[in-house]
Amino acid sequence: MKIMAINAGSSTLKWKLFEMPEKVTIASGMIDRLGSPKAIFKLKYNGKKIEEEKAIESNDVAVLAVLDALKDMDIIQRYEDIVAFGHRVVAGGEEFKKSAIVTDENLQKIMDLSEYAPLHNKIEAYYIDVFKKLVPRAIQVAVFDTSFFVDIPAMNYLYSIDMDDYKKYHTRRYGAHGTSHRYIAQRLDKIVDGGIQDKNVIVLHLGSGASISAIKQGKAFDISMGFTPLAGIMMSSRSGDIDFSILPYLMRKLGLTDINDMIDILNNKSGLLGISGISPDMRDIEANEDTNQRAKLALEMYRNRILKFIGSYIAEMGGVDVLAFTAGVGENSSEVREDIMSGLEFMGLKIDDENNHVRGKEIKITTDDSKITAYTIPTNEELMIAQDTYSFARLLDGFRS
Amino acid sequence: MKIMAINAGSSTLKWKLFEMPEKVTIASGMIDRLGSPKAIFKLKYNGKKIEEEKAIESNDVAVLAVLDALKDMDIIQRYEDIVAFGHRVVAGGEEFKKSAIVTDENLQKIMDLSEYAPLHNKIEAYYIDVFKKLVPRAIQVAVFDTSFFVDIPAMNYLYSIDMDDYKKYHTRRYGAHGTSHRYIAQRLDKIVDGGIQDKNVIVLHLGSGASISAIKQGKAFDISMGFTPLAGIMMSSRSGDIDFSILPYLMRKLGLTDINDMIDILNNKSGLLGISGISPDMRDIEANEDTNQRAKLALEMYRNRILKFIGSYIAEMGGVDVLAFTAGVGENSSEVREDIMSGLEFMGLKIDDENNHVRGKEIKITTDDSKITAYTIPTNEELMIAQDTYSFARLLDGFRS
Repeated sequence: MKIMAINAGSSTLKWKLFEMPEKVTIASGMIDRLGSPKAIFKLKYNGKKIEEEKAIESNDVAVLAVLDALKDMDIIQRYEDIVAFGHRVVAGGEEFKKSAIVTDENLQKIMDLSEYAPLHNKIEAYYIDVFKKLVPRAIQVAVFDTSFFVDIPAMNYLYSIDMDDYKKYHTRRYGAHGTSHRYIAQRLDKIVDGGIQDKNVIVLHLGSGASISAIKQGKAFDISMGFTPLAGIMMSSRSGDIDFSILPYLMRKLGLTDINDMIDILNNKSGLLGISGISPDMRDIEANEDTNQRAKLALEMYRNRILKFIGSYIAEMGGVDVLAFTAGVGENSSEVREDIMSGLEFMGLKIDDENNHVRGKEIKITTDDSKITAYTIPTNEELMIAQDTYSFARLLDGFRS
Repeated sequence: MKIMAINAGSSTLKWKLFEMPEKVTIASGMIDRLGSPKAIFKLKYNGKKIEEEKAIESNDVAVLAVLDALKDMDIIQRYEDIVAFGHRVVAGGEEFKKSAIVTDENLQKIMDLSEYAPLHNKIEAYYIDVFKKLVPRAIQVAVFDTSFFVDIPAMNYLYSIDMDDYKKYHTRRYGAHGTSHRYIAQRLDKIVDGGIQDKNVIVLHLGSGASISAIKQGKAFDISMGFTPLAGIMMSSRSGDIDFSILPYLMRKLGLTDINDMIDILNNKSGLLGISGISPDMRDIEANEDTNQRAKLALEMYRNRILKFIGSYIAEMGGVDVLAFTAGVGENSSEVREDIMSGLEFMGLKIDDENNHVRGKEIKITTDDSKITAYTIPTNEELMIAQDTYSFARLLDGFRS
């Protein structure tokens, strides 16, 4: 059964075609600079890589470009060979506690949730609609970045603001990166001795956006991202948590009158970039830490904020058994992992130095006698999306046959 | 040597007269509803209490009312019997790393720092000026709420925003309640076995405003309050930390156009009050927790946010040896203390139930075999102010004689 996982952004379209239930990636690709006459079309299939410049000026053309390429290369014969499409949707609000088949009603709900993720939900809903129209026999499934965290305890999803505002306007912690955190939890449940159903787990998704989750007895318990993905730890170009009183103060100093301009600065010119003054990319920061004071400071701050989140989750869960590092920095920077883990040696964590130097592989990075077990696990949100999508497709297939 | 400690607010004037270096409180009092024809004038002396309604319509009249009452009661013969006045000043910025004699130049600096504490610094500077003029022979000393935290590590005082904004506009973590945290650190250094110079300490100042500090090897290391006292844990009516993206969202929903109105709500209608819907006062919340779901939830959130801050400080310091509870809630609510400490039992903390039921007394509240030692210590900011002031007065006295 061929299933496609789709991750659409404002100027990108990423996709991966799976054979399910075997979890085999048949082909994958992405379109970059979408909307321009010089978009980049990339496709990987059977060890071959295609990369070409194409005029892809609309979302509809982008979808056709992907599907037609698959046909041209004989990967599929007809669009309908793909029986289901799974779409990453950023905001599911309190409405979507799980992945869902996108009926017309659900499509409207996803549109209505745009307020929580203006840059994402609208475009995602639009793509779902395009696929619906082009491949009407296939099912469309929405997999939400937020649903893993919908049922964390109220004490953690509520902000200490007027309760009526929460009730009326649903101002709460939604979190993000839920599909990644859920995938890592699923992997850990397989590779950790005895599974994670009776354990306290902390997952560090450290990419250019970054989030940390607490998972207690197999269920999400807390998440560093908040009402939006701007909250939590320091990120590539996002500030993460700051005293909100800074906003009116800096707006006055910078001569800004629109709060959205201030939030734009906190989103795009802060974090590692803001402190280092060099780059939002961890690789650049690490390359300059010995010669550049501000790069060094950026690393210190990055590490310390992560350590503080880990500590807060340890305290509220009453201990921690398992740590997992994932996403770009988490999978590849042995230095960042070492920096963070060394801060937990006082709790009996012991780093396995050799294993910790491995990059981008699923591996245990603490010694056998370490009191906290840590892993590096490459994340695979597309596979998670495909799995959720497959579970719906299989069910419907059963009904049809 | 008679020294007066002064804590002035917009409509209150609190004072305490000490005999130093004996640290004996001679008299104390406060004026409430200052600026009205029906101000409340309170004074305690020699076991007697005076409370009367008076027309005190200006700050100058308030100061005269206090000094003249002391003369009328023969506590002093002349104003000059008080050789030094110590003033609490909320914002000391990066300028004042220690308490300082208020020269004309320093008075101007205190005025200039008003931007960081608009409700406080101006009025405090005004009072200092009044005392200077009425008692020109006495010295005026400013004791800053922020100075204890000026030298915490850069990774903790910096926000992960554009470094240039910090350099130009001094947007950093200043903290608050520093005089209280410093007093508690001083007491702990006396009562903890071996002092605190080689220990990791966490001080919980839990009043209607509330803050938590990390003190490493006797020096301030971190503080939950931030650029302003609105940051950090949940407080009586202040939200503490929230995702700043909530501000523009709620402003839109509530039809607010001025960000300061939003901050006013987060300052005055949030926290325990906002969640419980009952009261900002912990005593009211505790009295209703069995019958009111929202009061119960407010307590859960309050406890959890404190526990998370404690955990984060434990992680960044690499462990904790000593905890201390102070201020209204910290000194008096054995329930809140128990709730918090029970969350640290996984680290080997053992509560001394009997001692923990004591209110408002300096006492150890963990057992002798507890791995973390906790105390309740009544705070005494006025005494701290008097001590700092005395150290200047004594020095000058030496020069004069």
